[in-house]
Amino acid sequence: MKLIENFDIDLESIVNMIIQEKATRVGLQLPEGFKRQAMKIAGYIEENTDAETLISGNPCYGACDLDVQLIKDTDLVFHFGHSRLEPFENVVYIEAPSHLDISTVVFQAADKLKGKRIGLLTTVQHVHKLEEVRKILEENGFETIIGKGDGRIVHPGQVLGCNFSAAYDITCEEYLYIGGGKFHPLGIALSTGKPVLCANPFTSSIEYIDLKQIMKQRYAAIAKTMEGKRFCILVSTKPGQERMQLARYIRDIARENGKEAYIVTMDLITPDQLLQFQADAYINTACPRIAIDEAGRFPAPMLTPPEFEIVLGMRGWEELVFDEIRE
Amino acid sequence: MKLIENFDIDLESIVNMIIQEKATRVGLQLPEGFKRQAMKIAGYIEENTDAETLISGNPCYGACDLDVQLIKDTDLVFHFGHSRLEPFENVVYIEAPSHLDISTVVFQAADKLKGKRIGLLTTVQHVHKLEEVRKILEENGFETIIGKGDGRIVHPGQVLGCNFSAAYDITCEEYLYIGGGKFHPLGIALSTGKPVLCANPFTSSIEYIDLKQIMKQRYAAIAKTMEGKRFCILVSTKPGQERMQLARYIRDIARENGKEAYIVTMDLITPDQLLQFQADAYINTACPRIAIDEAGRFPAPMLTPPEFEIVLGMRGWEELVFDEIRE
Repeated sequence: MKLIENFDIDLESIVNMIIQEKATRVGLQLPEGFKRQAMKIAGYIEENTDAETLISGNPCYGACDLDVQLIKDTDLVFHFGHSRLEPFENVVYIEAPSHLDISTVVFQAADKLKGKRIGLLTTVQHVHKLEEVRKILEENGFETIIGKGDGRIVHPGQVLGCNFSAAYDITCEEYLYIGGGKFHPLGIALSTGKPVLCANPFTSSIEYIDLKQIMKQRYAAIAKTMEGKRFCILVSTKPGQERMQLARYIRDIARENGKEAYIVTMDLITPDQLLQFQADAYINTACPRIAIDEAGRFPAPMLTPPEFEIVLGMRGWEELVFDEIRE
Repeated sequence: MKLIENFDIDLESIVNMIIQEKATRVGLQLPEGFKRQAMKIAGYIEENTDAETLISGNPCYGACDLDVQLIKDTDLVFHFGHSRLEPFENVVYIEAPSHLDISTVVFQAADKLKGKRIGLLTTVQHVHKLEEVRKILEENGFETIIGKGDGRIVHPGQVLGCNFSAAYDITCEEYLYIGGGKFHPLGIALSTGKPVLCANPFTSSIEYIDLKQIMKQRYAAIAKTMEGKRFCILVSTKPGQERMQLARYIRDIARENGKEAYIVTMDLITPDQLLQFQADAYINTACPRIAIDEAGRFPAPMLTPPEFEIVLGMRGWEELVFDEIRE
């Protein structure tokens, strides 16, 4: 059944799983881009099984973002579009591999790559295409290497927005990143200090990552926070994002340095919800992308924990890294 | 300790309770208007007890809106600004009575009221002032009556945005409502069919509720939904708003009438989150205010369950009422 342009979801095996598990109530959780298919999927399930379906209407930005209430309220939850992260017995992760052609951008990349030994990285949508990437590059005279990553990484060569570990465990001169968006390749470049060529199969653009703009933006946020006195330390209660111990550490080092700091727990972190607290800055221990991707939308600077260590002089300016949630 | 202009919160008794209960971790939940005091309250608690405080950053629009995760993560939660609704063992409701003078608007109301026997209604902030209202009106020759309401109502004469039961159990010619905003008095007028004089102590305005505009808006939403085919039935997972049985009833009558309908569960219901589903209308079993107060901000009509019965011809147009969550 063709549901989403260029993505492959096998509804028959979902139906078989529901019948086999004798599930009477089934939850569906889909990332934002897939939500418009939710009623179609629910309709298919209810036509072909006796199960009732409940669709999660909550935001879903990753496998870290499980709908815990839906998991409690149903026998089986199908979580679409992401690879397994948190071990919940009744959650089935339905990856949605993209059919998008990546060979064109990889051939273009082969013309542009400067190194000899290339580390290959991508997101879950394209990870099944890495062998094809490897073949093209090797036919063009490159050596390739694909890292395994830590325990939060399911597929070799896969990166998450909060985990670039598949880039760390390999030796290479530079990286080729296949995928849309700039966040992942920025994180890889900043964390490894090596060149990252970004091949975007959606826009057919090929370019080396330039860290200047993001560094300038982060340095400005860090500098502004140095003047602040009252900070909120944010903890997400999402199972894949909760880092309370880290939040306590940040709160305590802030206080040791004469600052006021309190822990604020929340589900979804939005600019609107923080407005009321009137803090001088927010230190975010939840999804590391929030501080970077939504910079400027918050009522005060939003820093990651490593950036706050720079504020307090515990880490040098040259030691700026992207925050990661590692194993 | 003066925390919030015109509101009274006794921090000493909060500190004593924490010490007495030997709580080591304390949660604070405040409605939006009080959140800017959160760090001040947390600071006072941490200075005067050994407890660690966690502040809820989630939206809080009523006592129906308890932070369930915070309740799990702490020994004691102080929920500010609302009266008790849900029975949780470790939740302490800290009402914040308003000091605002209400006598001026009540004297003005006495000049305007047409009936003889007046039912008195207000929200939790002013409920301790109802005896003063009664005295003024009786000195001016009126009879007054104050209803008890059902089990969701703590104080005689109190109304919630989803419960006007204190208006039902009394016999009177008209109502005097003391408070800000139009939602509560609109609900009282629509539900009882009697005149409601609205005395707003924040703006010093006195006016009879006029239902014309709201009726027009609701009729338009109902009429537009009649053309629709695919509906999302919304269920909130907030403990004080969850009405899954009602949602199933709505889904089933929709399907019996040849419509497609699916249940969508979510925490906070926002226009942004519904955008992706591309439904022809949304039927909301959660907080009844959402459909009314935020009408027009949603991507498609948002109806209450009684309004949807009008769509299906199961209820007459003249039987339009505000949705309520009763005992």
